[in-house]
Amino acid sequence: MFEKVLIANRGEIGLRVARCCRDLGMRVVAVYSTEDRDSALVRMADEAVHIGPAPARHSYLNIPALIEAALCTGAQALHPGYGFASENPDLAEVCEDHGITFVGPSATVIDRLGDKVSARALMAEAGLPLLPGGVEPAAGLEEARALAAETGYPLIIKPVAGGGGRGMQVVRDPGELAAKYRQARGKAQALFGDNRVYLERYLASARHVEIQVLGDRLGNLVHLGERDCSVQRRNQKIIEESPAHGLPADVVRRMGEAALLGAKAAEYTGAGTFEFLVDDTGDFYFMEVNCRIQVEHPVTEVVTGVDLVREQFRVAAGLPLELSQSGVAPRGAAIECRVNAEDPARDFLPTPGPIEEFTAPAGPFVRVDTDCFPGHRISAAYDPLLAKVITWAPDRAQARERMRRALDEFHVSGPGVRTNIPFLRRVLDDPRFADGTHTTSLVADLTSQEPLG
Amino acid sequence: MFEKVLIANRGEIGLRVARCCRDLGMRVVAVYSTEDRDSALVRMADEAVHIGPAPARHSYLNIPALIEAALCTGAQALHPGYGFASENPDLAEVCEDHGITFVGPSATVIDRLGDKVSARALMAEAGLPLLPGGVEPAAGLEEARALAAETGYPLIIKPVAGGGGRGMQVVRDPGELAAKYRQARGKAQALFGDNRVYLERYLASARHVEIQVLGDRLGNLVHLGERDCSVQRRNQKIIEESPAHGLPADVVRRMGEAALLGAKAAEYTGAGTFEFLVDDTGDFYFMEVNCRIQVEHPVTEVVTGVDLVREQFRVAAGLPLELSQSGVAPRGAAIECRVNAEDPARDFLPTPGPIEEFTAPAGPFVRVDTDCFPGHRISAAYDPLLAKVITWAPDRAQARERMRRALDEFHVSGPGVRTNIPFLRRVLDDPRFADGTHTTSLVADLTSQEPLG
Repeated sequence: MFEKVLIANRGEIGLRVARCCRDLGMRVVAVYSTEDRDSALVRMADEAVHIGPAPARHSYLNIPALIEAALCTGAQALHPGYGFASENPDLAEVCEDHGITFVGPSATVIDRLGDKVSARALMAEAGLPLLPGGVEPAAGLEEARALAAETGYPLIIKPVAGGGGRGMQVVRDPGELAAKYRQARGKAQALFGDNRVYLERYLASARHVEIQVLGDRLGNLVHLGERDCSVQRRNQKIIEESPAHGLPADVVRRMGEAALLGAKAAEYTGAGTFEFLVDDTGDFYFMEVNCRIQVEHPVTEVVTGVDLVREQFRVAAGLPLELSQSGVAPRGAAIECRVNAEDPARDFLPTPGPIEEFTAPAGPFVRVDTDCFPGHRISAAYDPLLAKVITWAPDRAQARERMRRALDEFHVSGPGVRTNIPFLRRVLDDPRFADGTHTTSLVADLTSQEPLG
Repeated sequence: MFEKVLIANRGEIGLRVARCCRDLGMRVVAVYSTEDRDSALVRMADEAVHIGPAPARHSYLNIPALIEAALCTGAQALHPGYGFASENPDLAEVCEDHGITFVGPSATVIDRLGDKVSARALMAEAGLPLLPGGVEPAAGLEEARALAAETGYPLIIKPVAGGGGRGMQVVRDPGELAAKYRQARGKAQALFGDNRVYLERYLASARHVEIQVLGDRLGNLVHLGERDCSVQRRNQKIIEESPAHGLPADVVRRMGEAALLGAKAAEYTGAGTFEFLVDDTGDFYFMEVNCRIQVEHPVTEVVTGVDLVREQFRVAAGLPLELSQSGVAPRGAAIECRVNAEDPARDFLPTPGPIEEFTAPAGPFVRVDTDCFPGHRISAAYDPLLAKVITWAPDRAQARERMRRALDEFHVSGPGVRTNIPFLRRVLDDPRFADGTHTTSLVADLTSQEPLG
């Protein structure tokens, strides 16, 4: 294992990774922006290197600064967390060039799967079911129009270089195509520096179900079951759970097999996630692969008992997986709620500012991943995630009851700070969520907003 | 289930029980002493009733005050927690007389098992192995001398009305008997208001292993495996774990069967613990039954996934156990450390006082049961337990690493407050604990103190 690890991230995931490093006896190097100089991660780390100011392009996205920090401190490995540069193949490649182990798949694999069109092609070849759509980037409006006629409406335009649900446009009929196509290209350029887009049939009401995979560098692959992430607001996940309640065991089994086939085809190593949409007949369709640890990884950890970040480090160190597929034995049900500093009454506007009081819930089978503490300041420069609350129980009904209690126990205050807790409670109390029949349209129904901007 | 529950306790267990009530949709009535008026439990409760000042005999041990609080608030059930009046058959009986459901075994069962001599007799009859000793209280020094000659030396003198390791005297040779016998009777009177004592062969170096049982009011009984509580200082448990590392599966199986036989003979209902000593040959001997939830119950919860307090409430409500013996499937390994406000450098003298900073460890597979918070005051009137830290992992070695990290992360400060964390770290680092070959003499070896005062 490594002696010293640089964590190229911040917030709760930075602290999560740091704790894992400590569990494994490894020293922790934090990097931090000026905004984050008083963070819990900086306080916990053995060494901390200032890498620049917010916004992220001057610090957490600044690859030369990250590499320099690793070289100066003698860190042998770099963990990218999620977001920021975690799925940038350049970071993986530059790490490799400098003899630093990147804790994630190789640059080649990230590149192959990061381009959503090449990922679609690879997965189609591997036999995974895909929604009708363009497997080549739509080169212009005329080509898009022709493709749209084949795909059918409604359809969705997605950035080729995208991911995580950002910059997508739903097109309900042919009359909207031209305008939405232009908007999508503009957004893709703005968000990802690449204006290529592709088209796909849009399922207005489906379930988002994903499979967690793990692969080592010796070619062994396992999957750790599914997560349902259907509670989304504008394609951003809010509540995730495992198992996917009410999904037939046969569907889940076939999705797991599909993910393993896809991971094999991509020569995947480390922790990764295969995202699928599942329609109301139980048919499922590959969407994309996330080449990193997910925000929602804890629900898989608490049901399987597997520390996914530990497995990432083991794989990065060249060790074989300790798990076999038959050894993966999920127990009970877990739910995660993302508690954000935002105001549900004002269209979920982030509410940055200082936190004065912060009392997180606790007790049996409640896990809270957070880097907040009384005196912490929520920065406007980053996403407003305050904490992830994860509850577990032998069954989903009890896990839901426990989540309701945990959220009631959560107390955050500070001038101007609001949280989405009242909204999370509304979702938990909704009869569709309670009986597990909700789809990705639930939040839009509750907020009477369009599901996609 | 009940609508409203009175919690006749304080501290971390009060909060633990309150959270369970909330999970089950029940309203919480706290009772509190003057010292505890600002406690986390009082803040969390739906209603809180002041029942008197410290010490406990004027409040938490005051049965009329507890009953009056339950009647005034309309609480249908009373949960006694551990310690205080939890094993006082009078409380169970007076509850019953007033139509309040006592969350625990009946007064008859508590009475039967609370008298250690009658419990020994009952268990001997049920076929449980016992250490040689007096099954009748030693009526006087002459009778004690005769019994001691049969039992052999070293032996231990225990209070008949005792429990929890308090008031015991080790006698190494016949010359010590008279003095120790007198001391033991005096202590028994002072501690339990009953000067009866009994004799038992003393195993200087054994393992303390206990079996968690659950029984419903329909006669169903299950056990939830074992806990090893061999890390004790002066008969007070400090570190507990499950499973009992290195104990042959056959021994554990037979202990589980013995506990079920004993529970059946005692007509046990609710959560209870059968305590055994295990010698180095794997022979085990019944010691006593604890008729309540144990301090160390979380290690069983995290390995089995069973919420023991929830089961207590279900049984009290007359519901059948949802568990069958074959459905009990422990996973991985758990360790609990009791973090006390005491000074290891000054013979573990309690260090009451205000807590200014309080940062408990967190992260995956770390549970902390505490009612402390910044601003909380550790009272000299109660035991100095600050928090219980419980770690889980797929195996004991990883659970131990995680505990070391968790304790390193634990930060408590306040004028005069010290903790036993440095001492817990010493135990965790000791090679005997690391390889699981330690016995109840470990702490005495480390502190060079007599194991028994």
